Amino acid sequence: MKQLGAIMSSEIAQTPTVFSAILENVDAFDSVKDVLVEQKIQSVLILARGTSDNAAHYLKYLIETQIGLPVGLTSPSSVTIYNSQLKYKNTLVIAISQSGQSPDLVHFATAAREANAYLISMTNDESSPLAKIAHHHFSLLAGPELAVAATKSYNAQLLVSYLLVCSWTGKKVNAAQIIAEAQRIATDAGLVAKAVVNTTRNNEIVILGRGFAYPNAREAALKIQETCKISVQGLSTADYLHGPISALTADTQVFIVAPAHMPAQSIVEATTKIRKTSNRIFWIGNGGTPSGDDIVLAGSNCDDEITSNLVDAMVLQRFAMEFAVASGFDPDAPEGLSKVTLTH
Amino acid sequence: MKQLGAIMSSEIAQTPTVFSAILENVDAFDSVKDVLVEQKIQSVLILARGTSDNAAHYLKYLIETQIGLPVGLTSPSSVTIYNSQLKYKNTLVIAISQSGQSPDLVHFATAAREANAYLISMTNDESSPLAKIAHHHFSLLAGPELAVAATKSYNAQLLVSYLLVCSWTGKKVNAAQIIAEAQRIATDAGLVAKAVVNTTRNNEIVILGRGFAYPNAREAALKIQETCKISVQGLSTADYLHGPISALTADTQVFIVAPAHMPAQSIVEATTKIRKTSNRIFWIGNGGTPSGDDIVLAGSNCDDEITSNLVDAMVLQRFAMEFAVASGFDPDAPEGLSKVTLTH
Repeated sequence: MKQLGAIMSSEIAQTPTVFSAILENVDAFDSVKDVLVEQKIQSVLILARGTSDNAAHYLKYLIETQIGLPVGLTSPSSVTIYNSQLKYKNTLVIAISQSGQSPDLVHFATAAREANAYLISMTNDESSPLAKIAHHHFSLLAGPELAVAATKSYNAQLLVSYLLVCSWTGKKVNAAQIIAEAQRIATDAGLVAKAVVNTTRNNEIVILGRGFAYPNAREAALKIQETCKISVQGLSTADYLHGPISALTADTQVFIVAPAHMPAQSIVEATTKIRKTSNRIFWIGNGGTPSGDDIVLAGSNCDDEITSNLVDAMVLQRFAMEFAVASGFDPDAPEGLSKVTLTH
Repeated sequence: MKQLGAIMSSEIAQTPTVFSAILENVDAFDSVKDVLVEQKIQSVLILARGTSDNAAHYLKYLIETQIGLPVGLTSPSSVTIYNSQLKYKNTLVIAISQSGQSPDLVHFATAAREANAYLISMTNDESSPLAKIAHHHFSLLAGPELAVAATKSYNAQLLVSYLLVCSWTGKKVNAAQIIAEAQRIATDAGLVAKAVVNTTRNNEIVILGRGFAYPNAREAALKIQETCKISVQGLSTADYLHGPISALTADTQVFIVAPAHMPAQSIVEATTKIRKTSNRIFWIGNGGTPSGDDIVLAGSNCDDEITSNLVDAMVLQRFAMEFAVASGFDPDAPEGLSKVTLTH
């Protein structure tokens, strides 16, 4: 009998190898570090869907906090449905996609390039349409990804985003630590076992994160939805307080993404309010403020929040995969999904 | 005994009056129509949270499709948590908020103005901090809003967004039609009764929309969450196909926001896939392609999709309110929420 989740499990475990390949190829980023200056870039737009859109949020925070340029996320339908002619003076467009194939992204990126945007793409296939039409393409170097739920390619998108911004700002990268921490997380057999046993599909699951932890909160929710056939929201802790918290009950299972070195003040208000109603709190990562019966899905101990998050992506993927298997689903081939979504 | 939802119901019904007040005051928009040119605006950022953030998505589509400038939505924590110094050369920042008070929005807007962004705000209180610090303030003219779940102020945000963009592009506004259609929807007693009877809180509800219908899909989901104590996602139909559709079952209740004149091709792919699994489809508005046992929450018949959406917001609010009351909740005062959320 086929082992449920064998492919997804194997692909998550390949993350350290993918990280090594990207970090060995770090010179690839030298060629674009002058782009911002030469092109007089004043704003950045990121084009992505699904898992890649979650990585896009990580890149948005990186560019805003490290470079100080405002970043927007595109609404592809502005172009594909409404035929907008967007103006791109001094604008950098970055397209992120595992396959590099979806017609809506290719359509949007082509229009942007024709309207004089500077176009960078990152895909896992250097012969893909998105790779071909960009001024610069960065390969994700993730190797073939066969499980429908993307894992190692998302982790590669985070790391490539990080290296792109480090190159622009001249920041030194602690490659050895990132690889070592990824290896440690990949080989920790019992990493998520306690959390899997203590989670039920029968009550609401919500995943919260803020700032650099928000992309992983969104990705955790998407990964659980894709593999476990339940509806899960991934929200900013700040947005959660603006409405969705009203659905919180004593049985709600609240996962908070809390990488090492996360600024504590970013979630104190939300955590205090949540504890008044539910004590079923799970922490993904080594930050946060666990207490009582909270369950910790221990993450990495990198130098800062930003790199801790990129390693901790493996923790949430491991949880989704093992929780799906425990629920009797095959996370390698979720119902109703195909590996490449061709949106028009 | 207090009538459940009496305040929220009354405030939704005040929408035609609010629309009239805004449309009578349309000259207020003349003063900013040269701003884009004078300020050499090249990109736009919108600052908002919760319900106002949903209105922000409507304004994003308006500016992108009608003016052709790319629009981004801000991540306030870039500034409030990470102290980013964002650069705003040739940038318009638009802040949307009912109260105009939340410290994170005021902090972000103040930093943007100090860094030379051109700042426009729209709030329901012309003495609010966000109103005071803007170069231009537009009043929502919604009058006091007492129900915790915002309704007429959201509708006002949509209309003010529409008039702002019409002023910039010189487009003529069909004020009589917007008001007449809002009055018709407001006084149709049985508008959502069939949908309320045929919806259950015990199975998943998901709300889909694309393009101009996406903001109302998000707002419908938020409104149901705020008032009915269940978790509901509001998603772009395109994003839905990228993962969340995996949670779809025969019992999932799929609401599709489909205003009159909506481009049919925007949802055909999603609808076809959904029908293979679930036939519990509800349409909000007079567009779309209902068939079989689908339930239609009939909306407005305005001249175009854009104005149909701003009237149809009342339909989704009526549904959330009546569904909450049918479920025994008081939509005027949802648990765990307060009228003004003061995020830091």
